[in-house]
Amino acid sequence: MAQARLKYFGWGREGEGYTPEEEAFLLGIYREKFAVADFEERPVPGLDAITLRAPRLTPPAALAAICSTDLYDRAAHTFGKSYPDTVKGMLGDYTGAPDVVAYPRTEAEVAAVMDWAGGAQAALIPFGGGSSVCGGIEAKVDGTRYKAAVTLDLRELGRVVEIDRASRAANIEGGAYGPALEAQLKPHGLTLRHFPQSFDYSTLGGWIATRSGGHFASLYTHIDDFVENLRVVTPQGTLETRRLPGSGAGPSPDRMFIGSEGILGVITSAWMRLQDRPTFRAGGAIRFPSFFAAARAVRAISQAGLYPANCRILDPQEAANTGAGDGSAAIMVLGFESADHDLAAWHARALECVRDHGGTPESPGEADAHLKGAAGLWRNAFIRMPYARERIVPRAIINDTFETAITWDKFEVFHDRIKAAVEAAILRVTGRPGQITCRFTHIYPDGPAPYFSFHAIGRHGALLDQWQEIKNAAGDALMAEGGTITHHHAVGRDHRPWYDRQRPELFATALRAAKGALDPAGMLNPGVLIDP
Amino acid sequence: MAQARLKYFGWGREGEGYTPEEEAFLLGIYREKFAVADFEERPVPGLDAITLRAPRLTPPAALAAICSTDLYDRAAHTFGKSYPDTVKGMLGDYTGAPDVVAYPRTEAEVAAVMDWAGGAQAALIPFGGGSSVCGGIEAKVDGTRYKAAVTLDLRELGRVVEIDRASRAANIEGGAYGPALEAQLKPHGLTLRHFPQSFDYSTLGGWIATRSGGHFASLYTHIDDFVENLRVVTPQGTLETRRLPGSGAGPSPDRMFIGSEGILGVITSAWMRLQDRPTFRAGGAIRFPSFFAAARAVRAISQAGLYPANCRILDPQEAANTGAGDGSAAIMVLGFESADHDLAAWHARALECVRDHGGTPESPGEADAHLKGAAGLWRNAFIRMPYARERIVPRAIINDTFETAITWDKFEVFHDRIKAAVEAAILRVTGRPGQITCRFTHIYPDGPAPYFSFHAIGRHGALLDQWQEIKNAAGDALMAEGGTITHHHAVGRDHRPWYDRQRPELFATALRAAKGALDPAGMLNPGVLIDP
Repeated sequence: MAQARLKYFGWGREGEGYTPEEEAFLLGIYREKFAVADFEERPVPGLDAITLRAPRLTPPAALAAICSTDLYDRAAHTFGKSYPDTVKGMLGDYTGAPDVVAYPRTEAEVAAVMDWAGGAQAALIPFGGGSSVCGGIEAKVDGTRYKAAVTLDLRELGRVVEIDRASRAANIEGGAYGPALEAQLKPHGLTLRHFPQSFDYSTLGGWIATRSGGHFASLYTHIDDFVENLRVVTPQGTLETRRLPGSGAGPSPDRMFIGSEGILGVITSAWMRLQDRPTFRAGGAIRFPSFFAAARAVRAISQAGLYPANCRILDPQEAANTGAGDGSAAIMVLGFESADHDLAAWHARALECVRDHGGTPESPGEADAHLKGAAGLWRNAFIRMPYARERIVPRAIINDTFETAITWDKFEVFHDRIKAAVEAAILRVTGRPGQITCRFTHIYPDGPAPYFSFHAIGRHGALLDQWQEIKNAAGDALMAEGGTITHHHAVGRDHRPWYDRQRPELFATALRAAKGALDPAGMLNPGVLIDP
Repeated sequence: MAQARLKYFGWGREGEGYTPEEEAFLLGIYREKFAVADFEERPVPGLDAITLRAPRLTPPAALAAICSTDLYDRAAHTFGKSYPDTVKGMLGDYTGAPDVVAYPRTEAEVAAVMDWAGGAQAALIPFGGGSSVCGGIEAKVDGTRYKAAVTLDLRELGRVVEIDRASRAANIEGGAYGPALEAQLKPHGLTLRHFPQSFDYSTLGGWIATRSGGHFASLYTHIDDFVENLRVVTPQGTLETRRLPGSGAGPSPDRMFIGSEGILGVITSAWMRLQDRPTFRAGGAIRFPSFFAAARAVRAISQAGLYPANCRILDPQEAANTGAGDGSAAIMVLGFESADHDLAAWHARALECVRDHGGTPESPGEADAHLKGAAGLWRNAFIRMPYARERIVPRAIINDTFETAITWDKFEVFHDRIKAAVEAAILRVTGRPGQITCRFTHIYPDGPAPYFSFHAIGRHGALLDQWQEIKNAAGDALMAEGGTITHHHAVGRDHRPWYDRQRPELFATALRAAKGALDPAGMLNPGVLIDP
């Protein structure tokens, strides 16, 4: 690959990260927020300072060319990108490193690695771009029945294999990263338009396995609806679902694998529904006197059947934190897009809903308004945000996010109780007030997907415990108030305590049985979703 | 109930059926189509001419009040409404009658009947409105390990339990029939707007269990997308999924039960997403020079992101058969609806797509055009159509339908090959040419859901074999050409030979394991979807 390799610590590829200006802006916000003069900065170990145990298994000769036990490969596959992952990386705790990293180039090699790892009684951890923020790719096998752990990195399976222009669909390999996937579709005038925040460092297979939430704020929010079929390699063999625009033949086979987080099989390719590249746009930013006023406008728009591509709202503090506002108003970023028709009628009706609820458009009428003003500022901050974590953790700042969904009848009380629970936890844990903000990332006619961010000043030596206690408060509140533990960040290992309460026990029984049929040895991603 | 009871033979309730004028129109079409002077009419046995075996089990005293072994109850629950069902009814073949019919009034009674039937080693057949056209409700237990069959009729669980106006959702019991369900929503200004052809004689639980296709020709075509949560009684206990507008927490529990056709549990209630009652409408009928021209217009509209509520097309012969056309043109019935906004912009752009492909609107600009002309004629014929079967079977006319879905890249060749295969089968089986027509019932950006009807003159004494041979030709062609064996009529027992080829074997393995976990004795609807 001509690209730089992924960083073993932090977000993105080697050479990437916040600019000094971005870092100064970020730390300035925290200094002001918490009235601290400066932060005690701890060092992050360089790659050569990391020691890993000797690999507990050796790939067979036939697979040697696609397997690595190098320090870099193992270290770079030890963690996802969650807050505790970053703390553990800073602490140099690589006890969970996989023994071997495999880079299969074909579906047959995926199956071969699976066969070999299964025979060696190793756990197999499917790995897309490694952007999990919920412990989805950790090889935690110490003290278990697994003799070792093999990480299966799908990055070599990155091709768009076939395009069906008439049906606007493409057959794409599971390891295709966002940018490479879009680059291959662009010459055909097509786009998947699935842009999770992790777009640059996540893959199609990862999106499908985690029910990723993407570009579209309404209607097509999850990757789920774009899946036309799947090919999946399981320890019992390879299966392919029938490629169809719609079907009513029994429970959907695709839906069993969508969201299965690697515990049932490895998604090697999929036929995906695509979009024409949009040429018409309408929208812009809108100021609201309060977050709840903005939320009521969102509800009106989402129930009107207008289906905006973008309809995100930020509470006043969230807007200020990202430079999109001054803290005095909630901001809505509204956008319609189409490859087919002018959107004046859609936009005009949405603005009526906006005004009904006290909203004031920032720059009505400009076609590129989505790139300007508050909307543009927000968009840039959003894309760059994942680079912040590696800068704040060494300074003992605690900042994390969690996202959920709730029906409209419960939303306002829900919002206040979640905030209160997290605020109380931060005060209890850190001894000083923190901050929690909220935005909507996706909307439905029956409720929003609120996305919370929290900020606190932690203490070196206690960061993992402090973070966990705040996370526990958030998870407990989400469960108590009727939300979901995750709207689009998946379950992984970190969300298990709440997922286990959220999903019906009898569904777990059925899922466990299905897994037992496809993966009798329980080798695939043990600990994710259900116990192996 | 104040309503008349369901007919034991034929469609609907006692006292209902085709008028003499409708029957004359129907038979006139067949006389002309096949150049026959008249039909040999066989009698249908009256209820008192039917003999059933003695029930093989007796309900316990605690359930006696909600159980029946009466002739009527058992006869009226023997068959669905398929062509072979109707032939068997005419022949008086009630060997598959259930031993007992139970009418639980509460979820607890559903569980009690399940416990009792399980203890008695009986099969339990969930029954909604009995409108299955694929053998979904047959109690075929002769020669099996089941000692008897109990049909569980959910009709007493018909309430709308709770309404959440803010989220536009309602908690509805599984046995609610279409009209009763809508009548309870109407005072709140809400509607489920799920109008399958069977609307009058099918239930919410049945729609969910079979992935019913409904009112909306685009976007929300299947009931699946309207399910917010489910309550399901299984032999291992009752489960309820979390009510959420959206979630990414593992594989969707709802999606495992949606389409499970009664083999995993009995759906006793669901929170369903609703619509405001539409007040704005635009649309009407459009004439096209050919079916494929109309199909190309459908593709353009469906890929434009306009989401019409109605976008059905009829080929010229289908239009003629239903009185909606004269056989010289294909007809599109196009309709937009909204409770929120005027639809002029939506309709105008769709008409541009229509004209791009040679379509001529019948009556542009009339707001009630969907009730007039070809659109209105089609709509009335469509609703009344199920009453035809009980008139044609005694006259040895063979008429059945099958529906599928296919991606746009394959559609035209697919259409021609399916038609050719069925035409050849009819000629071979009946010795004279038949007729096969096509319409689209639902559309997707990546392909249509074509719905075929076929007509032939059969022979008394051979009807079941003749029908089966034609059905086999249709099913084999659907599989060979890449379609689905069912788009919204479900699998049941009749579609098993093709479903077994369509769904990946490893998915069947997983589904079988899931069923084994929830229904260890295999008592629920044996033979549907998978072998018990």
